[in-house]
Amino acid sequence: MAAAPGTFTYGQYRIPPVDEQVHFGVGQPAPSLLPLARVRAAAAAKLAEEDPLLLQYGYISGYPQFRESLARFLARGYGKDAVDPELLFATNGVSGALGLICSLFATRGDAIVVENPSYFLALSIFRDFGLRVAPCRLDEDGLDTDELERMLRAPAPAGGEPFRPRFVYCIPAFHNPTGYSLSAARKAHLCRLAAEFDFLVLADEVYQLLGFDGAPRPADPLCYFDTPEVVAAGGRGGAAGHVLSIGSFAKITAPGLRLGWLQASPAGAPLLKRIYNCGQLDSSGALNPLISGVVHTMIESGSQEQHLAAVRAELTQRGRVLGDALRAHLPPGATFIQPQGGYFIWIAIPPPLHGMRLMDFCVVKHRTRFHPGERFGTGLDGFIRLSFSYYSAPDLAVGAQRLGEAMREMIAASAPAASIADKAEEAKQ
Amino acid sequence: MAAAPGTFTYGQYRIPPVDEQVHFGVGQPAPSLLPLARVRAAAAAKLAEEDPLLLQYGYISGYPQFRESLARFLARGYGKDAVDPELLFATNGVSGALGLICSLFATRGDAIVVENPSYFLALSIFRDFGLRVAPCRLDEDGLDTDELERMLRAPAPAGGEPFRPRFVYCIPAFHNPTGYSLSAARKAHLCRLAAEFDFLVLADEVYQLLGFDGAPRPADPLCYFDTPEVVAAGGRGGAAGHVLSIGSFAKITAPGLRLGWLQASPAGAPLLKRIYNCGQLDSSGALNPLISGVVHTMIESGSQEQHLAAVRAELTQRGRVLGDALRAHLPPGATFIQPQGGYFIWIAIPPPLHGMRLMDFCVVKHRTRFHPGERFGTGLDGFIRLSFSYYSAPDLAVGAQRLGEAMREMIAASAPAASIADKAEEAKQ
Repeated sequence: MAAAPGTFTYGQYRIPPVDEQVHFGVGQPAPSLLPLARVRAAAAAKLAEEDPLLLQYGYISGYPQFRESLARFLARGYGKDAVDPELLFATNGVSGALGLICSLFATRGDAIVVENPSYFLALSIFRDFGLRVAPCRLDEDGLDTDELERMLRAPAPAGGEPFRPRFVYCIPAFHNPTGYSLSAARKAHLCRLAAEFDFLVLADEVYQLLGFDGAPRPADPLCYFDTPEVVAAGGRGGAAGHVLSIGSFAKITAPGLRLGWLQASPAGAPLLKRIYNCGQLDSSGALNPLISGVVHTMIESGSQEQHLAAVRAELTQRGRVLGDALRAHLPPGATFIQPQGGYFIWIAIPPPLHGMRLMDFCVVKHRTRFHPGERFGTGLDGFIRLSFSYYSAPDLAVGAQRLGEAMREMIAASAPAASIADKAEEAKQ
Repeated sequence: MAAAPGTFTYGQYRIPPVDEQVHFGVGQPAPSLLPLARVRAAAAAKLAEEDPLLLQYGYISGYPQFRESLARFLARGYGKDAVDPELLFATNGVSGALGLICSLFATRGDAIVVENPSYFLALSIFRDFGLRVAPCRLDEDGLDTDELERMLRAPAPAGGEPFRPRFVYCIPAFHNPTGYSLSAARKAHLCRLAAEFDFLVLADEVYQLLGFDGAPRPADPLCYFDTPEVVAAGGRGGAAGHVLSIGSFAKITAPGLRLGWLQASPAGAPLLKRIYNCGQLDSSGALNPLISGVVHTMIESGSQEQHLAAVRAELTQRGRVLGDALRAHLPPGATFIQPQGGYFIWIAIPPPLHGMRLMDFCVVKHRTRFHPGERFGTGLDGFIRLSFSYYSAPDLAVGAQRLGEAMREMIAASAPAASIADKAEEAKQ
């Protein structure tokens, strides 16, 4: 029954090896970063206990000892003295949490705000719920909250209502696809706007704990800015209690655990209570009680933190090697901000390059692949996203070289045509 | 770290021992029916494999070998030659599946039909989604499909639309709370109505495999009636492909696994495809891949079927002991149909008894508790539901005796008052 390594039993799809293609689109942990031995040991230790209630429906928000353990783990990761376990709520991962929150807090036709660009699969979830997505620009300090404020203060269109989103979905730390992080000042600003205009903020902080070794820690998770003090300092009124920070073990441990958590501020505790009281959880109990037990054991034994350190060290090396290789190989005009954590590098490609056409060219002629920018929002033809989570550092360097060659070849091939187009453009002016 | 048995680490809430109270409301498996040793062995065997992709996002519908194994298990349970694994879809249990299906297939304000009575926590889920619930009567053959047909064929109200539900939610096998099963003839009728009036049927078949030893197997799961042949035999037109059979390991193995499945007919395969393609699953991959692996091992080793046999034997004994004790102790006029499987006995209590007041009286004076009928629908004051899943057969017999005493005492105490009320009623006529 045991599957030999290399047979294809569990993976969702086949990912090519470097000689065949470097698929920079893969936003999954590499197999070498999946801690099978640690999960094996933790499951054995947890299931060696003799309490069969481990298999019962279980506490809706996650059993208390698990949340206490998770709180200590997060406090160390956030650099806090303590995290209140009563403000944590176990989920079955970010996607499941987003689905549950949308079902409880939003109605088909509601407007929501997302960053442009944003995580394309979250956009699919919102589309399934019939939500109207309003994109808001972001820059290297994250979501442009000044732009968001303009959207909110804009006068209502004739005969219409002013713009009032049900929630803002954002990825504050090492954003997907850009790798940018929301600054502390903007986090405070966002929480003030949420208080004044009474919308939720769903902060997908799945990369929060994946800062590179030696890099400054990103600003605190967004829920820490959802306080009466921060709101009062804005002087525009409204109350705190609008933020859900959404975390996950998918990237820091393993996607297949399907375990994550919500964190609220004390002011936001009623949001957790509403989820606690929903019909689905009243019926099911905890969202993932047995796996919570396994991860509880991983945290308590120190195994979780050892693994996180190994993941961070590996991502640090990969991100830096890929950055160096891109700086060495990309043509002039292709620019990016070196990430300080997470999974991604977001590259602005110079005209006449176009993300989708470049990708097609890379696949056919240069054994590389990636996600073109337009998958992540609108007006993003001039960007591409590279993930460095899956391939090893040497493989990533090979991919960067191929990508640089592809760009240069495509620029060279299109140069005369571009010149003609430029002249035609001049003639019209 | 290991919790000693008896400490209260994992359970959702404390359940009283028999000397304190027999809580007939508890619809959970008894701790003695939770197969901790089997799960321990299966997890050890599965995690002894060396393929780290077990921890990856995983096939959206459940990895193929798991579904093949599940298909063989279900075929044996259903008495079929084979079940097509391509028509199975792994979920994280019935509640999660209902949430996901509501989010994809229904819109706030949609009408749906449920049995009256129905599982009260499913009703909470539908309320969270803003669905308008239309109850339909049921009897000992299950949902009254003639009544449903009358609802569907009723002329539209003046200025309104005819009644068109988005879906029917039903519990065809050993129904909660009544224990009744939908007959094969009505299953066919329901599928014809779904085809003609184009609504979905969500068949919560969580008790399907829990028929008592020696009792006839319930009619096939509802998806087996969702065929072109059944629809054509109705002669009213419409196409098959409207049914999702929803199963779960919660009752046949353990709730804490959070693992279940959907099954469709070949005609209903597009329903599974729509779920497969939704944003949430595109993002998360499989809903519970690691636990699917554990249960896969339990099935392949025979452990799952051994456990199911033990659960059925125990439920058979409990259901029969409780039925016998109720027949011995209930007062005249209290009636019920002896269940042939599942978890529940549904008792019609004679006037002047009233479910909620009887429950209060039982809790205060007779150390028993249950769910009064009105929790499950409307006009059900004259019913109560007893679950026999949690307490041992001797404890259930004790509870039945206490319940009988409570009913007799309450009837005796209210007899004069009832007479006066009767006379006042006569005087008015």
